[in-house]
Amino acid sequence: MITIYFAAGQSRWQNYEAPLRTALAEAGIIADLSPDCSDPAAVFYIIFAPGGEIEDFTPFSRCKAVLNLWAGVERVVANPTLTQPLCRMVDPALTAGMVEWVLGHTLRHHLGMDRHIINPSRHWEPTCSPIAAERPVTVMGLGALGQACATALQQVGFPVRGWSRTEKQIPGLTTHHGTDGLKAALTDAKTVVLLLPKTPATENILNMETLSFLATGAAILNPGRGHLIDDLALLAALDSGAIGHATLDVFRTEPLPQEHPFWSHPRVTVTPHIAAETRPNSASRVVVDNIRRGEAGQPFLHLVDRDRGY
Amino acid sequence: MITIYFAAGQSRWQNYEAPLRTALAEAGIIADLSPDCSDPAAVFYIIFAPGGEIEDFTPFSRCKAVLNLWAGVERVVANPTLTQPLCRMVDPALTAGMVEWVLGHTLRHHLGMDRHIINPSRHWEPTCSPIAAERPVTVMGLGALGQACATALQQVGFPVRGWSRTEKQIPGLTTHHGTDGLKAALTDAKTVVLLLPKTPATENILNMETLSFLATGAAILNPGRGHLIDDLALLAALDSGAIGHATLDVFRTEPLPQEHPFWSHPRVTVTPHIAAETRPNSASRVVVDNIRRGEAGQPFLHLVDRDRGY
Repeated sequence: MITIYFAAGQSRWQNYEAPLRTALAEAGIIADLSPDCSDPAAVFYIIFAPGGEIEDFTPFSRCKAVLNLWAGVERVVANPTLTQPLCRMVDPALTAGMVEWVLGHTLRHHLGMDRHIINPSRHWEPTCSPIAAERPVTVMGLGALGQACATALQQVGFPVRGWSRTEKQIPGLTTHHGTDGLKAALTDAKTVVLLLPKTPATENILNMETLSFLATGAAILNPGRGHLIDDLALLAALDSGAIGHATLDVFRTEPLPQEHPFWSHPRVTVTPHIAAETRPNSASRVVVDNIRRGEAGQPFLHLVDRDRGY
Repeated sequence: MITIYFAAGQSRWQNYEAPLRTALAEAGIIADLSPDCSDPAAVFYIIFAPGGEIEDFTPFSRCKAVLNLWAGVERVVANPTLTQPLCRMVDPALTAGMVEWVLGHTLRHHLGMDRHIINPSRHWEPTCSPIAAERPVTVMGLGALGQACATALQQVGFPVRGWSRTEKQIPGLTTHHGTDGLKAALTDAKTVVLLLPKTPATENILNMETLSFLATGAAILNPGRGHLIDDLALLAALDSGAIGHATLDVFRTEPLPQEHPFWSHPRVTVTPHIAAETRPNSASRVVVDNIRRGEAGQPFLHLVDRDRGY
């Protein structure tokens, strides 16, 4: 019997209890799983989402791992009381959902769908985009999500370049890295997809200078982190037409405040942080698999590197 | 020196002359290529698009092939004076463009993009679609375009079923055929893609009965032919909410008349016959390759079966 503390909020408990109990039963793990914790020292695993349930990890002295329900860990990784191993969520359904969002919005901009979706004057103008093979896409961030998106975009025919902070070799993908590689990665891109983690090194990586590298009328897709974009520089580039459109899923403040200029800008689409929503069924299987590994003395999957911050 | 008559209209001549001359030069073919014809009996090949240039093919007594610039041939195949071989356009860029249109609009409906593209009340509602693996798509018509779309949809994760009038076995794809197979093909589909040719057997194939097989709120995509849908049955199903949305690229009358109810229906998106627009560069290479084959005594590619009508 192992004790598992679900420290991710009462509303999530409603969605997660049944899938977690099913996944534990399938893995043959007998556990005391609860959203309440009377004895921190008895807890073996913490299923976690940021939001106030735990600020101090010190009392969880026997805890073998903190299993985050989200892919992003920036709100917990810097907590100095967290000495236990921290695992990110790498949910196969989350990756699938992200690929669908990125591919869907890339194709939407590529095909110019909005002029048909909103066409009150009933204008019949049969002009046609060039095919995807003539429209380069740059994917910034080459983790699990970025690589999956790059592959899916390539399968549809887009020429894809990747960029990451440190060098990565990925078969079949042209990659650039580091500050020196930004210009080569971004020049003439017609779509840019931001899938970098939030670290000090990635803040405002899309700014007045780097936006200027893109093709005129390029589309920006940000399903990554709000801090990756210098918002004022983006608004200026949208106003001038240098950038054609931005579809943004993440923001410095969420929900995006009602008075924020992104809501009313004709060249901005706001989606409400849905690109990488974790799905309970598949996420529960991922969490339980890590508990099974911990109990079997195997290394945890998706362990966070505390120095890099992701 | 062979004589090639470009009988596809003066406006297309503007776009096609240079690509055709380039493709002929690349193939080493010396030709008299012209949009005018003073001596029909001297013409070896006709590059054709319907529209009035040729109604009577009888005078073209030495013509080896009529090379259609479009995939659809219904406006020429029934011409009783046409005794020459007729070839359809199978343009690789046309297939790519069709796949992009189908995949893009399938993902648009699947992700519910329109509620974010048009969101004047600035509503932040982070609900999230199930992933593609839970949203079956049915592709009606399994020619070159239908098969390419089915493969692309499968790569993104959609479960895909195919339907064709006559039986087709396609590795990795669940297929149904004939009138008896319609119910099995369509039941519970969340998206239907119409890519059937226009023949008497396919007219109104989506009607009150077959629409009722689909999942509630399903999306209809018609990049095929306007006649495939019973328009009144579709409008009734959209009004009742049984069908969630229709994105239509082809119509019984084109351009779609300004007073047609499709223009104003909140659940219909009209695209102006752009899904399978032929691109001059690649189409010219396909036409010239068939001329090269004809001169070398090889069988023509994409020859139309006159009895089937496509």
